[in-house]
Amino acid sequence: MLDALFKPRAVAIVGASTKELSIGNVIIKNLQTYGYRGRIYPINPTAPDVRGLKAYKTLDEIPGEVDVAHIIIPAKLVPQAIEDCGRKGVKAVVINSAGFSEMGEEGARLQEAFLANARKHGVRVFGPNCQGIINTDPALKAYCNFTFTYPEPGSVSVVALSGGVGALIMQGLFDLGVGMRMYASNGNACDVSIPEILRYWGDDPGCKAIVLYTEGFSDPKEFLETAREVTARKPILAMKAGRTEQGAKAASSHTGSLAGVDIATELIFEKTGILSFQDEEEMVRAAMAFATQPIPAGNRVGIITNTGGPAVIATDVLVAAGLEVPALSETSIARLKATQLPQAALGNPVDVVATAGGDQFRAAVDALQEEEGVDSIFINFVTAPFTDTHEVARQIVAASRNGNKPVVCNFMTDLTQERYRVTMGILKEGGIPFYATPTAAARALAALARYGRLRKRDIGRPETFPGTDAAKARSIVDRARKAGRSVLSAAEVYPILEAYGIPVAGWKVVQSAAEAVAAAGSIGYPVVVKVDSEAIDHKSDRGGVAVNLKDAAAVRSAVEEMQARLGAFGSLRFFVQKFLPGGRELILGARAERELGHLVMFGLGGIYVEVLKDVVFKIAPVTGVEAREMLASIKTRALLDGVRGGKGVDKEGIASLIQRLSRLLTDLPMIREMDVNPVLAFEHAVIAVDGRIRI
Amino acid sequence: MLDALFKPRAVAIVGASTKELSIGNVIIKNLQTYGYRGRIYPINPTAPDVRGLKAYKTLDEIPGEVDVAHIIIPAKLVPQAIEDCGRKGVKAVVINSAGFSEMGEEGARLQEAFLANARKHGVRVFGPNCQGIINTDPALKAYCNFTFTYPEPGSVSVVALSGGVGALIMQGLFDLGVGMRMYASNGNACDVSIPEILRYWGDDPGCKAIVLYTEGFSDPKEFLETAREVTARKPILAMKAGRTEQGAKAASSHTGSLAGVDIATELIFEKTGILSFQDEEEMVRAAMAFATQPIPAGNRVGIITNTGGPAVIATDVLVAAGLEVPALSETSIARLKATQLPQAALGNPVDVVATAGGDQFRAAVDALQEEEGVDSIFINFVTAPFTDTHEVARQIVAASRNGNKPVVCNFMTDLTQERYRVTMGILKEGGIPFYATPTAAARALAALARYGRLRKRDIGRPETFPGTDAAKARSIVDRARKAGRSVLSAAEVYPILEAYGIPVAGWKVVQSAAEAVAAAGSIGYPVVVKVDSEAIDHKSDRGGVAVNLKDAAAVRSAVEEMQARLGAFGSLRFFVQKFLPGGRELILGARAERELGHLVMFGLGGIYVEVLKDVVFKIAPVTGVEAREMLASIKTRALLDGVRGGKGVDKEGIASLIQRLSRLLTDLPMIREMDVNPVLAFEHAVIAVDGRIRI
Repeated sequence: MLDALFKPRAVAIVGASTKELSIGNVIIKNLQTYGYRGRIYPINPTAPDVRGLKAYKTLDEIPGEVDVAHIIIPAKLVPQAIEDCGRKGVKAVVINSAGFSEMGEEGARLQEAFLANARKHGVRVFGPNCQGIINTDPALKAYCNFTFTYPEPGSVSVVALSGGVGALIMQGLFDLGVGMRMYASNGNACDVSIPEILRYWGDDPGCKAIVLYTEGFSDPKEFLETAREVTARKPILAMKAGRTEQGAKAASSHTGSLAGVDIATELIFEKTGILSFQDEEEMVRAAMAFATQPIPAGNRVGIITNTGGPAVIATDVLVAAGLEVPALSETSIARLKATQLPQAALGNPVDVVATAGGDQFRAAVDALQEEEGVDSIFINFVTAPFTDTHEVARQIVAASRNGNKPVVCNFMTDLTQERYRVTMGILKEGGIPFYATPTAAARALAALARYGRLRKRDIGRPETFPGTDAAKARSIVDRARKAGRSVLSAAEVYPILEAYGIPVAGWKVVQSAAEAVAAAGSIGYPVVVKVDSEAIDHKSDRGGVAVNLKDAAAVRSAVEEMQARLGAFGSLRFFVQKFLPGGRELILGARAERELGHLVMFGLGGIYVEVLKDVVFKIAPVTGVEAREMLASIKTRALLDGVRGGKGVDKEGIASLIQRLSRLLTDLPMIREMDVNPVLAFEHAVIAVDGRIRI
Repeated sequence: MLDALFKPRAVAIVGASTKELSIGNVIIKNLQTYGYRGRIYPINPTAPDVRGLKAYKTLDEIPGEVDVAHIIIPAKLVPQAIEDCGRKGVKAVVINSAGFSEMGEEGARLQEAFLANARKHGVRVFGPNCQGIINTDPALKAYCNFTFTYPEPGSVSVVALSGGVGALIMQGLFDLGVGMRMYASNGNACDVSIPEILRYWGDDPGCKAIVLYTEGFSDPKEFLETAREVTARKPILAMKAGRTEQGAKAASSHTGSLAGVDIATELIFEKTGILSFQDEEEMVRAAMAFATQPIPAGNRVGIITNTGGPAVIATDVLVAAGLEVPALSETSIARLKATQLPQAALGNPVDVVATAGGDQFRAAVDALQEEEGVDSIFINFVTAPFTDTHEVARQIVAASRNGNKPVVCNFMTDLTQERYRVTMGILKEGGIPFYATPTAAARALAALARYGRLRKRDIGRPETFPGTDAAKARSIVDRARKAGRSVLSAAEVYPILEAYGIPVAGWKVVQSAAEAVAAAGSIGYPVVVKVDSEAIDHKSDRGGVAVNLKDAAAVRSAVEEMQARLGAFGSLRFFVQKFLPGGRELILGARAERELGHLVMFGLGGIYVEVLKDVVFKIAPVTGVEAREMLASIKTRALLDGVRGGKGVDKEGIASLIQRLSRLLTDLPMIREMDVNPVLAFEHAVIAVDGRIRI
C-alpha cells in the first residue's frame, strides 16, 4: 500500500525554488546529495531549471509517471495542486506546506478541501505540515525530506509526528553510527497514519526495530491493535511527550492534534508490549543496542571493567533498573584466576585493572559467555594510554561473537585523538554498541533486558465468566437511558454487579420502618440503613445514614428518625444493607476514554487513594495476568498481604472482581463512568458495598 | 598548602620507563605533550635518557629542587622511595602505584610504612593507587597524570577519588568544549584529602565551580564542615555512587575505602548546599551551564523554539523538575506579534517556526530578556537547512548578552557538516551552553535553577531551648553506663526527654496495685498499665499491657492479674501512664553515624513506616528550617494537615520536638540509637508515649 510513498521511482517538487535557503530548493538538494536513484521533476512556473535539473511549468508537462509529489506552496493553493496531482496520476503527495488544521478553522477547511480531491483520485496524502520520508535502501536512496541528516543504511526505522523530534532521533542514531532503514514524519497525519506506517514496517524484512515518537493518538484503538500485531514481530521503542499538563498544552498547538494529559498512551504502550522511554537520548541509545545485540534471556549481568568507579556507577544503574549483578560461579572464578593479572579483582564486577591487555579482556569475556549465572555482559573499557587499546577492542569483538549473550560497552576515550578513533572503529565494525558513560551504557543494556521481560510477558486473553446475565444488565441500563437518567441508583447498580457475579453486600429497598425491620431480618444483622433519594445530597451530614444497627429496635428507630428529619423531601425510600465490619477498603472504577474503550482503575480506598493517589489503571478488557499485575503494582500492596499481624485478603477474589468489572464494561460500552467504592476485602471474600454508574 | 602539588616547578618521575606502553613513560609523554613549563626529571637506574630527556639514576643526582615526584614502582619499594624523596626535599609525591590499603592487610602495612616516612620529612602524599593532578594554567600546564584527555583551560575544577570517573568527567567537559581549571584524582587518599583539595580550590579565584565524584567519605565531619565553607563561595556539583547495596560492594573493593550503603552522603550534600546528581553525564552538562551562565532568580522559564516537538519535550522535563513555563505578559505578546512571522505561535513556548531567521530569534530573546515573568531562557534551535543558521546563532549570542538571564540552548544539528560546525562555533565562542537534545538542555537549566534555590535556602542555626537540663540527662545516661547497661529503661528515657522539654504522657513507676491506683488518680484516667521489667520480652503477648483503664477498679484488677500471671519473673514493677486515645501516630528516631554525629529520623508511625517506609532523615543538629522541611517532605504529609474532615495536627509542635531531640543528641553523643515511638500528635499537642535509648 505505501510502496509508492516509501519507494518512489520519480519525485516531483511542486514549489521547486532556485533560492538556496528555501524548502523548495533544499528538498531537491537533499535528493541530489543523498544520491536518489529515481527521477526528480522540479515544478516551477518561470525558471527553466532548478539546481541543474530541467524544471516543468506544470505537472502535466512531466513526460513520465510520478510516484510522489512534494507540495511546497501556500496553503490556499494546495487543494488545486492535489487536484492536478490526481489528474496526473501521482500516487502520493508529501505536503510540506503548513497552514492547515494546526492553524485553526480556516486551515482545517483547506485540509478538508484537499483531502476530498485526494480521495476522489485515490492519491495518498502524507502530512500536511510535515517533513517527509527517507528510504536509505542503497538501491533507491530516497530523501524526500527537508531536514539535514544523511543517515547510513541500517535496520532501524523511525517515525515521529513531530519533524523536530524525528530529526533529533535520526541525528542521534547517526551520531552513534547506527544505520537507519526508513524515516517518516507525517505532521498533521490527515491520511497516512502512524498505525499504517507501523504495519508497513512490520512487514518490511529490512526493518529490525522501530523507534516511535508521539504526542498522543487520533485513533488510539487502531494504534493499539496495529501495535500489538507489530510488536509480535519486532521491537517498537517509543516515547510519548506531553506528559505534563504544560507539555500537553505545548503539544496541542503544533500539530493540530487533540493531545491531552493522558495516561492512556502509557497504558497502550504497556498493553501492546511497546518499550516505553521518557528520554529521547536514552531511547536512541537503546536502539543502538537493539540494532546489533540479541535480547538477554534474563536479568543477570556480568560486568568486566578496567577501572573501578565506572563499575560502581554501572552497578548502581543496573540494579536500580531491576537487573542483578550476581556472584560468579567457582568455575568462572577459577578461569579468571588463571587468566587475569594478579592485581585483578575477581568478583562481579571483574576488575581486570587498567593495565589489562587484549588477552585479559578476551579471557574475561569468554568466561562470562560461558558462565551460566549471567545473561548479558557489560564492559567498561577506558583506553588506558599504556595499553594496546586496538588489541583490547579486537578481543572484545572476537569474544562477543563467541557466544549468544548481548554485550554492551562503556567506551571511555577521547575521539579527537586519531589513535582512539581507530580503537573505536574496531568496536563499531565489530557491532559492539558503545557509549561514553557507564550510566548511558547500563541504561541501554537495561532496555534490552526490559524488552526481554516484555517479550516473555503474555497477558493472555480476557476470561469469560459463565453465568453472567448480560441481557439483564443491559436492560437496566437501557431503562435508565430511556428515562433520560444519566446516573444510575444503587438499586440499579447492584443488580448489574450481581449479573456479572460480583458479590455485593445483601441489600433491599424498602418504604417503611416495618419493611426495613423485615428486610434486616432476612439480610441478617448488623445492617446499615441509608435514605435512598436522589434529591438528598450529603446523606451522612443530614443524618440519612445509620450504620451497625444490631437489632430490630435499632432499625426501626433509625428509619423513624430519618422520616422525621427528612420528611420534607417527600415520601422516602430506604436502602437496607448488610453491615460488614472490618475488611480492607478497596476502590474500583472505570472511565470511558475517547475512542479507546474503558480504563479500569484499582486501588486501596480511604486515605490511600486520597493522600497517596495510590491507584493503577489498565485498558479494558483486563486479563487475569493484568488484574494480578494491578494488585502487585500499587505502592501499598503489602497491605493486601496483611501487616502488623493482620491477615491478608483474598487477592484472587479481587483479581476476579476486576476482570468481571472489565467484562461488564466491555458488554456495556455506553457506561461513561463507574465506581465500585468501597469494595471490602476479607480473608476469604471480596464484597462490593456501594456503586455508581454514569451513562 | 597544596601549591607545591598543584603548581609544581619541577617534577621527578621515579619509575620513568623507556617502554611506550607503560605508566612511567606515559606520564612523561603527557607532561611533554601538554606543554609543561617546569622541569621534568626522569629517574631510571639504567637508561641514559627517557623520551629525549636526561634520566637520573637517583633523586639525589637531580641538580635542582623537586616539587612533585611521581612514584611508579612496585608497592614494596615505595617506603624507601618516600624516604629518598624526603631526603631530597621533595615537597609532594603522587603515588601512582597500586598495591596498598585497597589490596588488604599487607598493602595497608606498606601504606602505613611510607606514610610514616612522609610525615617524618614533611612530604605530602597524593594517592596512592591514584592518577594524579592536572593544572591547566597556561603559565604552568602541569599534567602530572597518566590519563589521556588534554583539557582546555577554563574555570571548572574536577576532583574524584576514582580516576576512571575523574577521567570520564574531564573527557565529558572536553567533549562539550568546557574548559577545566584543575583536576585531582587521589585514589586511596591516605594524606591529601578531598576536603583539603576543596578548601584549596575554594580559595582559587580561577575556579568558578567544582565537580566532585565520591563513593563515600573517610571523615564525613571534616567534609561537611569544609563543603559548607566552600559552597558559600562557589557551587559544588557532586555525584555519589555506590547508592545500591551492590554498587557499594563494588565500590569498597577498588579504593580500599570503607564505603557502605549510606544515606548520609546525600544528607551531607543537602546540608551543605552541594548540588547533587545521580547521572555523571547530567552533572557534566550542568557544569557547562555553570561555567558561563548566571544563576536564575527564580523558576520561571521562557521557551523559544523553531520546532514543535522538542519544545513539548523541554516543557515536560522542565515542569517535572519543578520549573514553570508561565504565560507571557501582554507586553511581550505584543512585542512578539510585531516581530515574528505570521505562522509563529506566540505563547510560551514561543514557536518562531522553522523558517525563522536571525531577526526573529533576536526579537524573541530580547522580548524574554525584558519579560518580567520569566527568569531564564530556553532555546530550541534546529539548523533548518533553508535558513541562515550562522545569523541565527549570532543573534542568539548577541541577545543573550543583552540581559542577565541565563540562556541554555538545545542545538539540534549534524556536526559532521562543516556548515553546521561553523554555526556551533558561533554559539560556543558566544558562551552559550548548548546540548544535542531538549531533555539534556532542560536538565542543565533545571540544575541552574535548583542551585538558585539551594543558594537562597538558609537553614539557619540550631535553636537553643531555655530550661533544658542537660546535666540531669547526662547523669542518667552516665549512671546507666556505669552500671554496664546499654539499653535505657522507659523510666530513664522519660526524664531525659522531659529534661529537653519534650512533652511525655504522664507516667509513674509503682510496685503494687494500691500504688498503681494512686498513681492513676494523680495522672488522671484513662491510663495504661505495663509491666516494667527488662526480663520480660513481648509484654503485650504475655498479657503485660492493659490499655484504656477507666477507673480504679480496672487498674487494680489489671495489676493483680499481671502479678498473678507474671509473678514467676520475680517482684514486679509497673509503669502507669496516661492513655491518650486518638492522635496521629508519629515516629522519631536517631542513630549515630560513624564520624558524623547523629542522623535524626521522622515519619508517620504504624503502617506508614512499615509499608511505605515513609521516613525522612537529617543530620543533627537539625535547625528549625530543616525540621519543617522534614515535615514537608514525607509522602503522607497531607495526613498532618488532616484529611477526610479530620483535624490537622500541631506541626510546629512536631518541629519543636524534632529540634529538641536533635539538641539532646548533640549534648549526649554517646547515644548510639534512640527511638521515640510512638509520638502522638493532636491538634494542639504533641506527646511522646514511649522511648528507647541505646548507648
